[in-house]
Amino acid sequence: MATQGQVITCKAAVAYEPNKPLVIEDVQVAPPQAGEVRIKILFTALCHTDAYTWSGKDPEGLFPCILGHEAAGIVESVGEGVTEVQPGDHVIPCYQAECRECKFCKSGKTNLCGKVRTATGAGVMMNDRKSRFSINGKPIYHFMGTSTFSQYTVVHDVSVAKIDPQAPLDKVCLLGCGVPTGLGAVWNTAKVEPGAIVAIFGLGTVGLAVAEGAKSAGASRIIGVDIDSKKFDVAKNFGVTEFVNPKDYDKPIQQVLVDLTDGGVDYSFECIGNVSVMRSALECCHKGWGTSVIIGVAASGQEISTRPFQLVTGRVWKGTAFGGFKSRSQVPWLVDKYMKKEIKIDEYITHNLTLGDINKAFDLMHEGGCLRCVLKMNE
Amino acid sequence: MATQGQVITCKAAVAYEPNKPLVIEDVQVAPPQAGEVRIKILFTALCHTDAYTWSGKDPEGLFPCILGHEAAGIVESVGEGVTEVQPGDHVIPCYQAECRECKFCKSGKTNLCGKVRTATGAGVMMNDRKSRFSINGKPIYHFMGTSTFSQYTVVHDVSVAKIDPQAPLDKVCLLGCGVPTGLGAVWNTAKVEPGAIVAIFGLGTVGLAVAEGAKSAGASRIIGVDIDSKKFDVAKNFGVTEFVNPKDYDKPIQQVLVDLTDGGVDYSFECIGNVSVMRSALECCHKGWGTSVIIGVAASGQEISTRPFQLVTGRVWKGTAFGGFKSRSQVPWLVDKYMKKEIKIDEYITHNLTLGDINKAFDLMHEGGCLRCVLKMNE
Ligand SMILES: NC(=O)c1ccc[n+]([C@@H]2O[C@H](COP(=O)([O-])OP(=O)(O)OC[C@H]3O[C@@H](n4cnc5c(N)ncnc54)[C@H](O)[C@@H]3O)[C@@H](O)[C@H]2O)c1
Ligand SMILES: NC(=O)c1ccc[n+]([C@@H]2O[C@H](COP(=O)([O-])OP(=O)(O)OC[C@H]3O[C@@H](n4cnc5c(N)ncnc54)[C@H](O)[C@@H]3O)[C@@H](O)[C@H]2O)c1
Ligand SMILES: [Zn+2]
Ligand SMILES: [Zn+2]
Ligand SMILES: [Zn+2]
Ligand SMILES: [Zn+2]
Repeated sequence: MATQGQVITCKAAVAYEPNKPLVIEDVQVAPPQAGEVRIKILFTALCHTDAYTWSGKDPEGLFPCILGHEAAGIVESVGEGVTEVQPGDHVIPCYQAECRECKFCKSGKTNLCGKVRTATGAGVMMNDRKSRFSINGKPIYHFMGTSTFSQYTVVHDVSVAKIDPQAPLDKVCLLGCGVPTGLGAVWNTAKVEPGAIVAIFGLGTVGLAVAEGAKSAGASRIIGVDIDSKKFDVAKNFGVTEFVNPKDYDKPIQQVLVDLTDGGVDYSFECIGNVSVMRSALECCHKGWGTSVIIGVAASGQEISTRPFQLVTGRVWKGTAFGGFKSRSQVPWLVDKYMKKEIKIDEYITHNLTLGDINKAFDLMHEGGCLRCVLKMNE
Repeated sequence: MATQGQVITCKAAVAYEPNKPLVIEDVQVAPPQAGEVRIKILFTALCHTDAYTWSGKDPEGLFPCILGHEAAGIVESVGEGVTEVQPGDHVIPCYQAECRECKFCKSGKTNLCGKVRTATGAGVMMNDRKSRFSINGKPIYHFMGTSTFSQYTVVHDVSVAKIDPQAPLDKVCLLGCGVPTGLGAVWNTAKVEPGAIVAIFGLGTVGLAVAEGAKSAGASRIIGVDIDSKKFDVAKNFGVTEFVNPKDYDKPIQQVLVDLTDGGVDYSFECIGNVSVMRSALECCHKGWGTSVIIGVAASGQEISTRPFQLVTGRVWKGTAFGGFKSRSQVPWLVDKYMKKEIKIDEYITHNLTLGDINKAFDLMHEGGCLRCVLKMNE
């Protein structure tokens, strides 16, 4: 390819400062070094983690940076030693790497690969601990090892999932974060079994994906809990069978659920990021076996608490990141499931805009009617 | 038997008021009603739950009562409909019932039978919601459905484990609480696998039983944590391979353990009842899979807390009651294991006294050198 080995100048949305509108800039994207892959991003969606870091509340947020971590694209070029993908491959960049070699990957117990974490956490690439993005020589930080709010990005090869080239990239970009997180929380982390009673706190994209996962796992009742009753109509299509709005009750929501279910639910999922809801989600679980999974990301410094008796009497408190999915191995499998119509994606996409509209897309996230907004990058 | 159907007058240690010495009294023990069993207690040990209720700190403690829940004896008579035991059977009364019929028993997921809980929690028997103990007509409350600090007690049939009549009752009485709790926390709740690294906080009877369970499960390292270094010598005999006294370090104990183990332990067990240690026990677990089990009973009203990130990055927080063992089914199996020398009991017994010395036995519990004190009842 003509661009291979060259610096590419392209459009990207740069976050210069917390809470200030992103600026569409011409950025220089350096060629991939050893073990790196340069990807032409065709579509990216927005997720709450982007908004969280952008808001300045993330103590580990670095500025200026290029946000974005839910996307799909095509490999433009690869660095030395990269064998698993080549130019032209359709791919999903994954913020959760999978190296297949580290203590984590080899444990068989977790998807939290440790290989490139020190670099991605610092907004740089492993090889030289520098950024591949710059504007007129001034470096711009990477974000989550993905930085998909750019027409071209550079990622570590251990963070690239190669997918079916037939898959529509404007849809499967969602498999980069929210949808797998919800499905995997049910399938991998909680391992919900047929007949189980499930409660879902928060019916955004993640909560709806939990509902879809629970339905496919054969849950007998799927109780959706949200303070926004408008969420209930759409949630029905994802498998939610009953709705509870905490605002309709005087008693604590955990008590409402315990009463509704003759002692509590078998599994609960917190899909909001609110530590007080995390407690409710644990305490609405059935004595003896109820398991609560934390998915929501709480604001920095906040803590969860409960009486230890809740655990001594058999409840289990867990959490999940990227739904426990091993990214390079399993994202392609999720793409295949979508192609076979075994999982939904289209239904989560409520808005389509272009990169130039990214600030509008962030505004949309705060509106109840928005699940996922997909941005087209090449205009 | 001559006593069958009769009220029996015998010696019992009565707790009249919180924190006041127990009084050895002549108590009247009514005959067992339908579904009840009257047991001649031959040996009882003391456990911290007795001391906790006696101290007045247990908000559900009822006075006057007869404490005690770690004992062994012989069935004296049975009430109507009792089929699984008969007079002369050797038994261990179990504070955790097993009815085999309730939602809990049938779930296959927990040992927390619900059948008689409302009665045992209220210090009475299910049948008539009254006590079988009295002194000159004044009722004395039951405790934990066992009340073994009496030469005779009445318990629900679902709370009686029939054991090998060859087993020495002065030893196997310990299988009523502490030893099974520690072993089961490892085998049933955590399911420790060969090669695992284990940390145990608190090296009393429960912590030592955890060590024994971990050793038999094939743990590669068993790290004992206690603020009393005198505990370390005896702990070696139970399988502890390394010792850490938090007082020897300036940094938080969870950091000490993370550093010692290249990232954290696979399993940790809190065997103290201290909520701040419960947090340390969780946070010393390895990212991705580390599981922490709460065994200790915290003071009423106290809460555990941590950052939700600890769980989102793969740690699991659990608890256990009676080690997850189903009492009627599995206590006899534990007795058999003891008879085959597959588990220790004798080594936990540091003191032997008689019922008349019970106040001295409570004092002994606060001494570092005491693990279990067994009282002989019939003198
Ligand atoms: N663990 C992971 O790997 C991972 C991955 C992706 C997203 N997340 C997190 O998951 C969370 C959910 O993401 P999303 O995109 O679905 O968010 P969202 O904002 O679209 O959905 C949140 C929902 O919760 C509802 N809600 C807010 N407060 C509530 C309350 N007190 N009680 C009940 N409902 C309440 C809102 O009305 C909304 O419907 C976020 O915290 C996000 O950061 C975690
Ligand atoms: N969950 C259950 O079913 C169950 C059953 C039995 C007992 N228990 C509980 O288990 C706990 C332990 O029982 P036990 O009989 O072994 O008690 P114990 O008092 O004999 O042992 C506690 C040990 O913890 C040590 N310790 C105290 N504070 C410490 C600290 N801050 N850091 C490190 N070590 C510390 C003490 O020195 C002692 O060795 C108690 O809370 C008891 O109520 C629970
Ligand atoms: Zn995300
Ligand atoms: Zn790895
Ligand atoms: Zn006990
Ligand atoms: Zn039962």
